[in-house]
Amino acid sequence: METSKTDSLLILHNALIVTMDTESRVFRNGAIAIENDTIKAIGQSSDILNQFSPLAHQIIDLRGQFLLPGFINTHVHTSQQLARGIADDVDLITWLHDRIWPYESNMTEEDSYISTLLCGIELIHSGVTCFAEAGGQHVSGMARAVELLGLRACLTQSTMDAGEGLPPSWGIRTTEECIQLQKELYQKHNDKADGRIKIWLGIRQIMNSTNRLLLETRDTAKELKTGIHMHVAEIPYENQLVVNTRKVDHGTVTYLERIDFLQSNLVAAHTVWVNENEIGFLARAGVKVSHCPAAAMRMLGFAPIKEMLDGGVCVSLGTDGAPSNNRMSIVDDMYLASLINKGREVYAKGTTDPTALPAETILKMVTINGAETVLWDHEIGSLEVGKKADMIVVNPFSWPMVPVHDCISSLVYCMRTENIVSVMCNGRWIMKDQKVVNVDEGEVISMAMRASKELLGRAGIQIPTRMKML
Amino acid sequence: METSKTDSLLILHNALIVTMDTESRVFRNGAIAIENDTIKAIGQSSDILNQFSPLAHQIIDLRGQFLLPGFINTHVHTSQQLARGIADDVDLITWLHDRIWPYESNMTEEDSYISTLLCGIELIHSGVTCFAEAGGQHVSGMARAVELLGLRACLTQSTMDAGEGLPPSWGIRTTEECIQLQKELYQKHNDKADGRIKIWLGIRQIMNSTNRLLLETRDTAKELKTGIHMHVAEIPYENQLVVNTRKVDHGTVTYLERIDFLQSNLVAAHTVWVNENEIGFLARAGVKVSHCPAAAMRMLGFAPIKEMLDGGVCVSLGTDGAPSNNRMSIVDDMYLASLINKGREVYAKGTTDPTALPAETILKMVTINGAETVLWDHEIGSLEVGKKADMIVVNPFSWPMVPVHDCISSLVYCMRTENIVSVMCNGRWIMKDQKVVNVDEGEVISMAMRASKELLGRAGIQIPTRMKML
Repeated sequence: METSKTDSLLILHNALIVTMDTESRVFRNGAIAIENDTIKAIGQSSDILNQFSPLAHQIIDLRGQFLLPGFINTHVHTSQQLARGIADDVDLITWLHDRIWPYESNMTEEDSYISTLLCGIELIHSGVTCFAEAGGQHVSGMARAVELLGLRACLTQSTMDAGEGLPPSWGIRTTEECIQLQKELYQKHNDKADGRIKIWLGIRQIMNSTNRLLLETRDTAKELKTGIHMHVAEIPYENQLVVNTRKVDHGTVTYLERIDFLQSNLVAAHTVWVNENEIGFLARAGVKVSHCPAAAMRMLGFAPIKEMLDGGVCVSLGTDGAPSNNRMSIVDDMYLASLINKGREVYAKGTTDPTALPAETILKMVTINGAETVLWDHEIGSLEVGKKADMIVVNPFSWPMVPVHDCISSLVYCMRTENIVSVMCNGRWIMKDQKVVNVDEGEVISMAMRASKELLGRAGIQIPTRMKML
Repeated sequence: METSKTDSLLILHNALIVTMDTESRVFRNGAIAIENDTIKAIGQSSDILNQFSPLAHQIIDLRGQFLLPGFINTHVHTSQQLARGIADDVDLITWLHDRIWPYESNMTEEDSYISTLLCGIELIHSGVTCFAEAGGQHVSGMARAVELLGLRACLTQSTMDAGEGLPPSWGIRTTEECIQLQKELYQKHNDKADGRIKIWLGIRQIMNSTNRLLLETRDTAKELKTGIHMHVAEIPYENQLVVNTRKVDHGTVTYLERIDFLQSNLVAAHTVWVNENEIGFLARAGVKVSHCPAAAMRMLGFAPIKEMLDGGVCVSLGTDGAPSNNRMSIVDDMYLASLINKGREVYAKGTTDPTALPAETILKMVTINGAETVLWDHEIGSLEVGKKADMIVVNPFSWPMVPVHDCISSLVYCMRTENIVSVMCNGRWIMKDQKVVNVDEGEVISMAMRASKELLGRAGIQIPTRMKML
């Protein structure tokens, strides 16, 4: 092993390290050596200190805290962060037509930048080092925010070339324009920010896509060697419409299989209304599923997550956007994913199944499965030599987690954002002692309050009051 | 109004005050005057300041933060806090026989004291000022902790006089002993700690109760003018056993109705497996239901909460105990209760219902409904003149809540424990700037880590590892 001349060698030691590697190794008193943006060594503290101390520029004693891979949130609408709370407790049509579409169609690139900054702050506080944008507005605004925050992301433009009810001000793009715009974004931003940004292709949903858009997106993704992010089988109405208009016997997944759209570079978000056959299609094609438990409960339904995992589908976790969830915390989504999938078994078995989706499975979903989902598992998703240094420090010695009798379940069921103290992405701290490093949180919050108020005004969105305001 | 001579008059002003009074009044820029332990006035900031400033001993500007009634958590196993994480992802029989019973039967009074201190810290951080103990071990230990922390509580001994599988070391009490012990606890602790402690009667569950215990508990509660806390209709097996052995056509609620046990002083916890008839029984008798969404998802099933609320049952929220939930946060339970009850509609209607259990309903459940549940609504549950000064200060100007477009939904769906900055109970601050006032958190945490390790050792409880520990 080369041990001479490094620009920067950092050792973190005296930590309980949950590696999430293929052997599921956990070092009770472990250390990690980080050279620039890369993990150089991992092992017992004494071994790492012996070998690397003489060369280290900095040695940090983590005093028994936990060290884990950074979490990966595989479905986030960053440009919807300013819309948090504009569509709570309303039906789906009101949500879409009266709130979300007017909001998104009135955004400027600056709004998207501010929205992504605010969203990014919440992602970082919840231990996220990498996320997949679900398809939003003004990718260049998002990219600017991601570069500044120091996060890693797969960014995607919301892409539609058809569909009823879209605001006229939006000006529906032609298929050519959709593909061309995304190619330009790819040229401009892919692999920028020290390689932390990837540009993906988007399909908002099948109801807003011509067949030609689907096929050209599939082929363009192959050409650019990138991924596709699409909302899939969200509501029964969507499947019914596909059955009626596209002549298949079940729904979106069946149709996508028929046109050879299901590939290993597809992230299918939600994927709630799928049958056994369709789970087989997803598994065989290597499609990745992003399960968003909060949005599912609120708007969509119970996705057959256990069946997908049992069937070999790679399932990861996403928060979805602020108007679908409110809390943009993958930490809460771990807790939620476990609970609702245990509860859902009532309808299959007559009782809940407390053993369904155990903690170790949930932890995989937000780390290594997340990395596979965003096609980045060669570099992130576990703490292993040669991978990028994306990791988080968790303090388990405070009221939300004490006592820790089972460190893995404690991380999944007890840990709160309060416990996440520091976050590193690509070898750099982006949060230290619960302070986001690269932006001033207070300033972003002021900008967000002003921008969101103006945007709602421009969009003509009114939120009814619920109580007697005096 | 009397405006002269007070021991202590405090004014909190410049706050958005959500009163939760019968008119659902919200003051955008409100103030409250507190004399000793009691709310003396509430209204617009300018009016309150004009009237009371000259007499005030302290005036605090809340700078636009939110002020609400303290939350009421109506089902908490305080003595199970040291057992957090000992029974995750295991089936119900393992949970009970191999983990919880050995744990509880080996507790000392000191363990219960430490457990309640640790639990109380979590309750306070999540904005709780009053809780109902579900029935645990060593009420005197709990009472000591509650008095020290400054909380308000209804404390209950876990009470059983029958049942198979209980650890022999426990030594099952006779019916007389059960009633006698509880009467002694009542004499010793009821109305102590400046009136903050009430002693209730407990029934662990019907499967551990003789008929005589049920009837004597009912009559003793009437005699002492106190409440009864009981786990009700938790699992289908319980109902089936009641049908088989107690000769009724449905389950626990039907049986309790027949023996005239259903009264307005009964808190029925969980109450998951009830039919339409039984909801009618609960409503007519004025029984209060404590809905514990996390425990329900994990172990029990989907309670028909919407049907109970529609049927006129007073439903409040509880966290249950740490081994059933892990997170003992009523703030998370608000979020969860809304989500799972929206999601549950899939099974009735084919789609979720995002309008079910709206934010204002959830907020009622943790305030005024909570107060009714613990038979204390004449003094707590809303911010009104003459009621006790139990309240919380919420900072909405940080990343979990910004932007606030809908203040009520933001409190229910976005607010996190991070946002709760200060908590007052009975006119005294028990948390200020996120620091619990009356105990040293670090010291309690150290005590809890030591005590829980020793207790698990004594009880012979072993937790299998989930990964390869090195």
